[in-house]
Amino acid sequence: MIERVCIIGGGVIGSLFAGHLAQVADVSVLTRRREHADALNAEGLRVTGRSDLHAAVTASHDPSQLPPFDLGIVATKATGLEQAAAALEGRFPGATMMTTLNGLGAEEVVRAHGGWPIISAVTFMSGTRHSDTHVEYILDTETWLGPYEDTPFERVQEAAALIARAGLEVEALPDLRPAQWSKLIFNATVNSVAALTGLPHDRHFAAEEHAADLGHLVHDLVDEGKAVAAAAGIELHDDPWQMNVLATRRGSAHYPSMLEDVEAHRPTEIDLITGALVREAQRHGVDVPLHTALYRLVKAKEDSWS
Amino acid sequence: MIERVCIIGGGVIGSLFAGHLAQVADVSVLTRRREHADALNAEGLRVTGRSDLHAAVTASHDPSQLPPFDLGIVATKATGLEQAAAALEGRFPGATMMTTLNGLGAEEVVRAHGGWPIISAVTFMSGTRHSDTHVEYILDTETWLGPYEDTPFERVQEAAALIARAGLEVEALPDLRPAQWSKLIFNATVNSVAALTGLPHDRHFAAEEHAADLGHLVHDLVDEGKAVAAAAGIELHDDPWQMNVLATRRGSAHYPSMLEDVEAHRPTEIDLITGALVREAQRHGVDVPLHTALYRLVKAKEDSWS
Repeated sequence: MIERVCIIGGGVIGSLFAGHLAQVADVSVLTRRREHADALNAEGLRVTGRSDLHAAVTASHDPSQLPPFDLGIVATKATGLEQAAAALEGRFPGATMMTTLNGLGAEEVVRAHGGWPIISAVTFMSGTRHSDTHVEYILDTETWLGPYEDTPFERVQEAAALIARAGLEVEALPDLRPAQWSKLIFNATVNSVAALTGLPHDRHFAAEEHAADLGHLVHDLVDEGKAVAAAAGIELHDDPWQMNVLATRRGSAHYPSMLEDVEAHRPTEIDLITGALVREAQRHGVDVPLHTALYRLVKAKEDSWS
Repeated sequence: MIERVCIIGGGVIGSLFAGHLAQVADVSVLTRRREHADALNAEGLRVTGRSDLHAAVTASHDPSQLPPFDLGIVATKATGLEQAAAALEGRFPGATMMTTLNGLGAEEVVRAHGGWPIISAVTFMSGTRHSDTHVEYILDTETWLGPYEDTPFERVQEAAALIARAGLEVEALPDLRPAQWSKLIFNATVNSVAALTGLPHDRHFAAEEHAADLGHLVHDLVDEGKAVAAAAGIELHDDPWQMNVLATRRGSAHYPSMLEDVEAHRPTEIDLITGALVREAQRHGVDVPLHTALYRLVKAKEDSWS
């Protein structure tokens, strides 16, 4: 029975989980900054947009100050994962940890710091951070959960049931990898192209009318990713090209997080997203020249402001 | 005998030619803007940096106001070429026209507007524009000239001799295409990578130590270009990879013009540079997936601010 949840990482996704889950469970939040925790303890957490909530949460930047919990939701950015996982080491022996990061490999990083049962998750939710205590819920799309290693599927279903009771869209899958890979290919393509062109995820990404159109490149990137998935024995949950086309037909263009990182001159998640795809391609002997090119371009772009 | 020179286009390259040639010939300048011509007529043209010159020139934005000339040096940007060539149509029957634009195809655009003998040229000079009447000469590298169609080589040598007397580095070649293609491949690679990463042409472009290093992509782009040149029957004058390595070893990193265009949100020369290479590749049945990808990314980047 999950009664106490800890959100590890108070960014957009973490805040959306915290605000909603606080309606049905005791929620604590592990933040990176002390001031962030202080603000959450003082003011609570507000969610606007698709939901309208105000949640009381217990927050700290110090893991030794957190109450015990049954479910930890790891929602840091890729660049903050190692530090967060190290902070959990040797603590919370009764907890199950759920990773919600983009890309591949977050589970291995958490495993390296403890023996907790792990749930893999990918989320398609999105939002905008307005302040330390206010997040706007923009896309109320699904989160998918699946067992990692020998975590019982019943544990996954229990977590999914709690998240559903909290008012979020969720699905438990016996094998998450088909969904994880669909999102990996989608993300590796859309994030790097957005980061390099400065375009939000808009109609350009699906345009294939003229030879110069960006949709041709997006399609070729998706096809490279599908070849890697096939070589890895993964049957994709969704076709990433269809995901791309559907997403560009929504009313307002989504601003991929990697484009936000580039505009703010922050390190991007390229290593955990495109980097993971390129590493899987090498492992399975598949050529991915376009993803490799975009990987190097985004790495060089990071170098341009460091 | 070349005694009167007209510079068509008062940008950096045009101003470098005008300032130097005015030391040994009568120089007029056709500008795009009237205020630019007014300033040049009033103040003359100043060149600092590698040279220290002050030149009296006759300038106008109206071709009907220009004195006759023997040699026209077309030094517009790609995006201004068609308009400038159209302005020359039906005028200056005694002139030879010399094109100095990046990429391929400038000669054909000029030819479509008149029967003048044409000299092809590529220039590696660079400078920085400080005002309408002041340009700084940064790289005092060579300009290469060659005959286009049936222009006699003697005419090319005469133009080269004049440019040399003016204090600029110059070489006349019986066939310019090997040099033009070397620069095309170099430019298509360096300009688009700089435009997408935000990096000036620095050591990153030659780095091949780690798998993520940008030099691998630059090398692959050069190799694609060399395959096109080979299919077109061109034996390159210089190896573009060596040009790249040597350029990145100079003291200060060069700021490619396409990066300046991107930062100023101006249309780039991508169609005349990478676009020309991609069109040649199609004509000769060579696959250039990386140049095609970068072409689409830069076109999409232009769309991001339009």
